[in-house]
Amino acid sequence: MEVKIKFVASGNVTSPRGFSAGATYVGIKRKAKDVLDLGILLSKAPCTATGLFTTNRIKAAPVVLSQQRLRAGKASAVVVNSGCANAFTGAQGLTDAAEMVELAAKKLRVSPEDVLAASTGVIGQHLPMKLIKAGIKKVVVSRDGGHELARAMMTTDTVPKEAAVAVKVDDIKFTIGGVTKGAGMIHPDLATLLCFLTTDAAVGIDFLKFALRKATDVSFDMISVDGDTSPSDMVIIMANGLAGNKPISHGSREADAFQQALSQLCVYLAKCVVRDGEGATKLVEVTVSGALSAAEARLAARTIISSPLVKAAFHGADPNWGRIVAAVGRSGVEIVESKIDLRIGNLCVVKAGCPLSFDKQELISTLRSDEVVINLKLNLGIGAATAWGCDLSEEYVTINSQYLT
Amino acid sequence: MEVKIKFVASGNVTSPRGFSAGATYVGIKRKAKDVLDLGILLSKAPCTATGLFTTNRIKAAPVVLSQQRLRAGKASAVVVNSGCANAFTGAQGLTDAAEMVELAAKKLRVSPEDVLAASTGVIGQHLPMKLIKAGIKKVVVSRDGGHELARAMMTTDTVPKEAAVAVKVDDIKFTIGGVTKGAGMIHPDLATLLCFLTTDAAVGIDFLKFALRKATDVSFDMISVDGDTSPSDMVIIMANGLAGNKPISHGSREADAFQQALSQLCVYLAKCVVRDGEGATKLVEVTVSGALSAAEARLAARTIISSPLVKAAFHGADPNWGRIVAAVGRSGVEIVESKIDLRIGNLCVVKAGCPLSFDKQELISTLRSDEVVINLKLNLGIGAATAWGCDLSEEYVTINSQYLT
Repeated sequence: MEVKIKFVASGNVTSPRGFSAGATYVGIKRKAKDVLDLGILLSKAPCTATGLFTTNRIKAAPVVLSQQRLRAGKASAVVVNSGCANAFTGAQGLTDAAEMVELAAKKLRVSPEDVLAASTGVIGQHLPMKLIKAGIKKVVVSRDGGHELARAMMTTDTVPKEAAVAVKVDDIKFTIGGVTKGAGMIHPDLATLLCFLTTDAAVGIDFLKFALRKATDVSFDMISVDGDTSPSDMVIIMANGLAGNKPISHGSREADAFQQALSQLCVYLAKCVVRDGEGATKLVEVTVSGALSAAEARLAARTIISSPLVKAAFHGADPNWGRIVAAVGRSGVEIVESKIDLRIGNLCVVKAGCPLSFDKQELISTLRSDEVVINLKLNLGIGAATAWGCDLSEEYVTINSQYLT
Repeated sequence: MEVKIKFVASGNVTSPRGFSAGATYVGIKRKAKDVLDLGILLSKAPCTATGLFTTNRIKAAPVVLSQQRLRAGKASAVVVNSGCANAFTGAQGLTDAAEMVELAAKKLRVSPEDVLAASTGVIGQHLPMKLIKAGIKKVVVSRDGGHELARAMMTTDTVPKEAAVAVKVDDIKFTIGGVTKGAGMIHPDLATLLCFLTTDAAVGIDFLKFALRKATDVSFDMISVDGDTSPSDMVIIMANGLAGNKPISHGSREADAFQQALSQLCVYLAKCVVRDGEGATKLVEVTVSGALSAAEARLAARTIISSPLVKAAFHGADPNWGRIVAAVGRSGVEIVESKIDLRIGNLCVVKAGCPLSFDKQELISTLRSDEVVINLKLNLGIGAATAWGCDLSEEYVTINSQYLT
């Protein structure tokens, strides 16, 4: 009996059996070399499917549509565009999302009821349906199309974000693939940006829902680029069962392996998002332990990675660690100043609430790395959590002050 | 019978009778032309006094000390330094704050029990007590010293922030003065940055507490520069009674006039803080009305002015108004998308949830002004609130990525 989980080389959303994808440029985004703005993901077999959606009360039309479709717990395709979020677009937006799905369904020869929609980009603008209608016909889905789909979802992302993990549990083998996008308005709250996950494992709907929630809890829900939660956030998982296993349900070895693999994949993808956050030059990992509860540890870790002052200091490798304790102080979690330990990289800067003398140059070098690891111990209980963020750079401001102009 | 409230030309914290102030450079901040870093505010008569303090659970030593002192409801002086916050400095920090107060008390020949302390600057560093000990002797307080005090409190502020209002109610005349500082780690939460308010009115302690809370509710609590609440926040008011009036208490005409004047002064000072926010190039005023409650309106307005994406768009005069509705959507307040009206300056961009077509160039010009006014109507109830913020510029990042280096 054995469980093996490993990342697939160049793996992506079409790595699991039976999934294909493709993309094209229809003209929503500004024209540029190799730019893509419309993609389709398809499973040749019907999938058990579920999703998690933004908690923003402004919900983009494709969020509303996909939530409705997923009530039945199944799906076989997703159509996605970038450049326009189809958010805050009223009744017209819903009509447009439904039409986009109809067009994709016709093209793919599947029922529109089995097609989900996702859009990302500017809020408050209508989808250019003429362009979509003309362009959608050009999409060719194939087993190799996962990477194209990843590119078609990008907005301010500088790199596509995708991966897959292969899982072997005893004699059952399955794969989970995923694709996601960033890079701004990233502060998922019980949901996430856009992420599509695929697997050839057969998975019962109840366990699939549970596993997705658990995986996003430790991954997408623990990242922030800028503290703004998007109206377009969604993470969708589709399981087509082509691995031929007995559907995975709670409490089995397969369930444990599936959960572990899915969580690893989601953490990997979530870290891709923050590493490529708008203007980001480094990844910051913050682990808070010794909190009164896991919820308090999560809140503290998220507050630290969201603080503009902490993020700006990381950007300049400024050894201003006082901002980290100030952020945890305002997070609302229980703390006792005299019990706090703080470590940045391998350097202990605070022990039992006392600032230690340390080599300032060493701290600056630590802060200059591509990845900075912070460990904050509150020493009050056993709650622990890890969150990932990025630095705040001048470029973030430049990108976001000229988004439309 | 008449009530007159007017701002005093070049008014400041020493405009009310009996208050004097002074400042010096002791060497905590980097040396520069005309730099000051230690100041003293003194009333020649004992004051009824109260204060509001940061809700950050990391409380700077002078916050702890001043909170204790104010339990008795009285004070006659404040000693303040900039360049070092004396925050997260443990027992030594408390000893240092007490010593700073002792030194000031000796110099001023008042009881140390009547002296408050405030510090602002870097967190996690001890006060350089030798410098303070040597320097405090040099402070000369005078009736003209209010402006020097304002300068001594500055950190990344580019201008001192001070004002005074003269009030006449029937035949009673009194003045309220104030001084405050920004310019980063500004997101007051049931308290504020550093602000000292003075008045020569005689005011009963109960009403003084009530009036201060009410004034900060609509002023300092409604501003944000960067979403980070400082461990050093405090607003203190001292009333020395030299106007000779009968102490003001609840329910009188004098109380109404005092409240109105104090609130106006605090709103003025709070707007000074955001206008001079780190890297800020403009003031943004957001009024949310039609919310289910005043609390919801406050939350929505504060969320909008705190959104990095909204702020960056304002910086570049980018007409990306979708970010405003996205921010209110994630704020947690009750909204119905199809009821929302949004106006930027004189331009209506959303009516009943529908994006309107408008002159994009006109919106861009509106966004280019020094002051941008946003009106968001939720059309659900009667809750309303106004908040003030600033834009997010590349310079904010530059300032905060090089604070210590």
